[in-house]
Amino acid sequence: MSSDAHAVLEANERFYAVFRERDVAGMDALWSRGDAVAVIHPGWPAVHGRDAVLETWRNILEGPGSPAITCANPRAHVAGELAFVICSECLPEGELVATNIFAREEGRWKLVHHQAGPAPPPEPMDEPGTVH
Amino acid sequence: MSSDAHAVLEANERFYAVFRERDVAGMDALWSRGDAVAVIHPGWPAVHGRDAVLETWRNILEGPGSPAITCANPRAHVAGELAFVICSECLPEGELVATNIFAREEGRWKLVHHQAGPAPPPEPMDEPGTVH
Repeated sequence: MSSDAHAVLEANERFYAVFRERDVAGMDALWSRGDAVAVIHPGWPAVHGRDAVLETWRNILEGPGSPAITCANPRAHVAGELAFVICSECLPEGELVATNIFAREEGRWKLVHHQAGPAPPPEPMDEPGTVH
Repeated sequence: MSSDAHAVLEANERFYAVFRERDVAGMDALWSRGDAVAVIHPGWPAVHGRDAVLETWRNILEGPGSPAITCANPRAHVAGELAFVICSECLPEGELVATNIFAREEGRWKLVHHQAGPAPPPEPMDEPGTVH
C-alpha cells in the first residue's frame, strides 16, 4: 500500500473515532477548511457547504441517538490531491456502507464529502438485475 | 462555473443518458480504464474493480427492471484530477441521492465510483439529531 493510501486510511479511522467519541471539535478539525464540502447522511437530503455540514455533525454528535459506530473493510483510492475510501459502518442497529472523500490540504487529508446508506442484508439477492 | 466543473457535469449527464438508454458499451466507455473503481448500488454491497463494476452495470442495463432514470440538481466539486458530483436521481418508484466520483484521464472525466442510496421523504424529519 502506498504511503498516501495509508495516510488516507488513518484519516478515515480518525473520522470514525471522533464520531464514536462524540468529539465535535475533532470532527470539525477533520473536515476541509474550504466550503466545497457536502454530506449525505442515511435518509437525509444532501447538505452542501462547510457550516451546514458541520451543523449536521453537531446535531448528531450531541444528540441522544449518536451511534456506537465502527468502520470495517476500508479500501482507499488515491488520485493526486483527492482520495476516497469505501468502507462498511457497523452500528448496533445494523450495517451501512459509506463513501468518504478526502482532499489533501497542507499535507493532511481532510474530509470533503461523506455518504452513508443502507447495506444489504446478509443473504444473497434473488434478482440483482432488477434494482439499481 | 469553471470549465472543469462544466465538463464534469457533462460527463455526469452522459452517465445518466447511457443508463436511461441501456447503453452497455456507452456505460463501459464512461468508466475509468484503471482498476481502482468501485460502485455501491442501493442495497448492494460495495463492488470493487473494473470488471466486477461493469458486470453489475451489464446486469442492470440488460435486466427487465432497468429504470427510467433522470438526474436532478447536480453539483460538481473539482480538485485537480479528481472531481465529484452530488445529485438526485429521479425514478418512477421515487428519488435517490447519489455521489459520482470522476478522475481525469487523457483530458476526459471518467467515472471511478458511484454510490446511490434512498433519499428522504418530502416531509421534514422529526428528530434530525437521532440518525446518522
